Amino acid sequence: MHGLMMGCPLNISGILKHAERNHPNGKIVSREVTGGVFEYTYRDASIRARKLANALRNLGVVQQDRVATLAWNTHRHFELYFGVSGSGSILHTINPRLFPEQISYIINHAEDQVLFVDLTFIPLLESVYSSLNYLKHVVVLTSEEHMPTTSELPLLCYETLLNEASSNFEWPDLDENSAASLCYTSGTTGHPKGVLYSHRSTVLHAWACSSRDALGIANDTTVLPVVPMFHVNAWGVPYSATMSGGTLVLPGAGMDGNSLYELIDGYQVNLLLGVPTVWLALLQHCQKNELTLSSVENVVIGGSAAPISMIQEFKEKHNAFVMHAWGMTELSPVGTVNSMNRYMASLDQHAQYQLQAKQGRSVFGIEMKIIDSEGNVLSHDGQAFGRLLVRGPWVATSYYKHEDRSAWIDGWFDTGDVATIDEHGYMSIVDRAKDVIKSGGEWISSIDLENAAMGHPAILECAVIGVPHPKWDERPLLLVVPKEGANPTQDEVLNFLSGKVAKWWLPDSVVFVDQLPHTATGKLLKMKLRETYRQALMSD
Amino acid sequence: MHGLMMGCPLNISGILKHAERNHPNGKIVSREVTGGVFEYTYRDASIRARKLANALRNLGVVQQDRVATLAWNTHRHFELYFGVSGSGSILHTINPRLFPEQISYIINHAEDQVLFVDLTFIPLLESVYSSLNYLKHVVVLTSEEHMPTTSELPLLCYETLLNEASSNFEWPDLDENSAASLCYTSGTTGHPKGVLYSHRSTVLHAWACSSRDALGIANDTTVLPVVPMFHVNAWGVPYSATMSGGTLVLPGAGMDGNSLYELIDGYQVNLLLGVPTVWLALLQHCQKNELTLSSVENVVIGGSAAPISMIQEFKEKHNAFVMHAWGMTELSPVGTVNSMNRYMASLDQHAQYQLQAKQGRSVFGIEMKIIDSEGNVLSHDGQAFGRLLVRGPWVATSYYKHEDRSAWIDGWFDTGDVATIDEHGYMSIVDRAKDVIKSGGEWISSIDLENAAMGHPAILECAVIGVPHPKWDERPLLLVVPKEGANPTQDEVLNFLSGKVAKWWLPDSVVFVDQLPHTATGKLLKMKLRETYRQALMSD
Repeated sequence: MHGLMMGCPLNISGILKHAERNHPNGKIVSREVTGGVFEYTYRDASIRARKLANALRNLGVVQQDRVATLAWNTHRHFELYFGVSGSGSILHTINPRLFPEQISYIINHAEDQVLFVDLTFIPLLESVYSSLNYLKHVVVLTSEEHMPTTSELPLLCYETLLNEASSNFEWPDLDENSAASLCYTSGTTGHPKGVLYSHRSTVLHAWACSSRDALGIANDTTVLPVVPMFHVNAWGVPYSATMSGGTLVLPGAGMDGNSLYELIDGYQVNLLLGVPTVWLALLQHCQKNELTLSSVENVVIGGSAAPISMIQEFKEKHNAFVMHAWGMTELSPVGTVNSMNRYMASLDQHAQYQLQAKQGRSVFGIEMKIIDSEGNVLSHDGQAFGRLLVRGPWVATSYYKHEDRSAWIDGWFDTGDVATIDEHGYMSIVDRAKDVIKSGGEWISSIDLENAAMGHPAILECAVIGVPHPKWDERPLLLVVPKEGANPTQDEVLNFLSGKVAKWWLPDSVVFVDQLPHTATGKLLKMKLRETYRQALMSD
Repeated sequence: MHGLMMGCPLNISGILKHAERNHPNGKIVSREVTGGVFEYTYRDASIRARKLANALRNLGVVQQDRVATLAWNTHRHFELYFGVSGSGSILHTINPRLFPEQISYIINHAEDQVLFVDLTFIPLLESVYSSLNYLKHVVVLTSEEHMPTTSELPLLCYETLLNEASSNFEWPDLDENSAASLCYTSGTTGHPKGVLYSHRSTVLHAWACSSRDALGIANDTTVLPVVPMFHVNAWGVPYSATMSGGTLVLPGAGMDGNSLYELIDGYQVNLLLGVPTVWLALLQHCQKNELTLSSVENVVIGGSAAPISMIQEFKEKHNAFVMHAWGMTELSPVGTVNSMNRYMASLDQHAQYQLQAKQGRSVFGIEMKIIDSEGNVLSHDGQAFGRLLVRGPWVATSYYKHEDRSAWIDGWFDTGDVATIDEHGYMSIVDRAKDVIKSGGEWISSIDLENAAMGHPAILECAVIGVPHPKWDERPLLLVVPKEGANPTQDEVLNFLSGKVAKWWLPDSVVFVDQLPHTATGKLLKMKLRETYRQALMSD
């Protein structure tokens, strides 16, 4: 017997409709690619999103067509989030940090019909344009006065299209399981793989993330997502903020410390979201200029783990609480958030920092388990570690037009991470399954070693990789980028690590480098490092 | 094209599973019907809910069977919320304040197989037992030592059933649209009508209500729902609190000022939920004993409107913020909440009070519109008023085993309320459609008149009804319950109202009474008053 409740579908347009009705004057702030900061309201954005929906129709776009973006976090990109998905087309956000051949591949793979592009990315687009097989229109996200005059591409102007379109548009009621947006993983091997989100998964994810036990986005929040709208929907923040009418501050192309500080201070931002490298730059900017992030209450850090020193610096210099969040493209992306709660509040400051270093507890909707190599479920005791499997209504069930099902086991998604889960539900990533170092039959966590090394005052960034070893199969090698002006030695670093990790974990060698390679989304490209240093320990 | 996301169904058991994994030590406090206060954790409750699921099987209960409760807000009732629905049966919560013949009617109408009953309600059950056609078992919510010895009913003991049951139970994955619980409206005419909630509607409602822009229930919340678990699931609080691991304080049968104060102060409750009459008693208790509700931050008031004087008293004497919530059994029940937000925060205190008197903005998921008598949609300008229609995924689409579809119009539910909605989305109930007073072709809001009269210091409670009038069709009559020791006169009251309402709204007569009749859920029974005073103005 079914309940007798309305079958109202969960639609992305419903989020914007709610905003227009309930917090029309809520503010969206956007740093323009052409300079200056633009401000308007959810009401304004709603009107323009409806115009956009009509403009898409005028361009011949029909429901389920893929519409691509190559764009920064701006108000126009925000309009595309709702105008494209809300009208029933599929928003394909492209990560401009992918290699050009990957960008060409995914635009063709998605069969994108129209591409909306920021001025910044026109040279990139020009370099791949001739290889694109389905694209009918390119729209530049600017006004007539800033339209490029020298490009040979057939370019349309976004503001002109909007000006010509009516704002009368009824958002259609769509099947909540219909596809809403598409994002390709930045995978380090093979072609990028597409994750196809539904309206349902997007709305449920936004609901879950808004919770005070997750990201905590409400009407009185002023949120600055430095996490990009071109990758996994900026962790869903554009949806969550719109749901609540919180002030949304979009940084455009300005990811440097100075530009970010200007927005944070100018708009009294209280919630930040981004990857550690961005915060490294911001904290350095603050240090150098003796500035404090006085309005900031919470800093959500994901993408890769924040070192405890960063967690401490935010707390002790800026009175800002760092919450780790963990997720993946395949998880829309949020799986866990390490928000403040009664248990954490009961700990002393030192224990709090230790706990904050974990990835956090699953947000309601996500289930997690860890399994050993035979598939046995391991206990949640904070000690046992195994492959992390997840499931939930915003977890991918397969890749878009892709045969590979190897990451799915009995209805669970294998994250490729190795993790522990403790009795309070706190998950801690031990390592990527492929990065864990197998030394003489035992496992060494490259991440734990990196976190320990990052405590050294002379180290700006570091990476630990397992490299082939004649006796132990693999041994850890530590690569270090020293801070400006610092000149640490191998002995100093190894002495520093002694006592902080098991003796047999100590790296066999420390290599000092100027920089480390990263993936398009800022993750350490360890595969490349392993190739480079393949022979490093073979002469022992 | 569908998104490629997991089809994980939203299940009520998922809420409890999440709690067991992520906040096992979160606390549930419960005042026992037999005296004393019981405390345990979400982990304990989870284990017992699984035992209960097995106990139900042992009693022969199968999926979709209806299982009834006649019970207070206690930990055992909490276990039934999850044990019954989670295992796939349907929880039918019975309002003991219904008339015995209504109780007999709904138990038969629902075809309840098993009834769980608090000691308090055994005499009530005895009075109707012989008329029950489907009931196979009666289980008393107590331990062996408190089992009644004189009853002639075949009574089972709850604690004994649990002791005999295994705690090994895998919550089944249920179709999210399957029925989960059933609640009958306390309707003033005809038989009560059943609203059948689904797992999906319950989970979505809990998510929406948890939001800081709604009830704001998070891990650090200590919530005391005085709203009963026997009617519309205590506004969903048992689900929302479990979702977040907030401390849940259940008042049992102790709804008086003293019992409530004891729990509030003893457990440092920061969120209260209840109807105005309960708070009237609590505030009087505080006044009389010079007590302050120092831990309380928010007081959610629904069921009927709180007078501004009550909103002021909570603020000025207890520094507690009153949030109106509005809903109905057919809405699971929450439709709007008047939570603090940027807009309200920008107003001065006087304007805030005025705004707080409104019913609030729709929670995300609920859409509202107002229509005139011809069905035209009225504008959201705070002035136009018309019948309030709603829709959303937790709004009823029909009644259980009932033909009447008169409350549904083109996919919207007609609430039977007359309301305004302003440009910020604030909905304000003007009146029940059947209570609005039609005087000479114009409408007078009985509720506005009552609110104005409640400002008089000598008035404890009042009601305004429209009674037949030879010249104007209907005119307002004001019924007043004076405060203890106060002796207001008709002239005093009318003078007080002059200037506060339009002159032609002034009641034609003021009648002083000792008490006013209420429905089972605490609403004024105006139908009865209209019958009693039908002739009051006909002699004019």
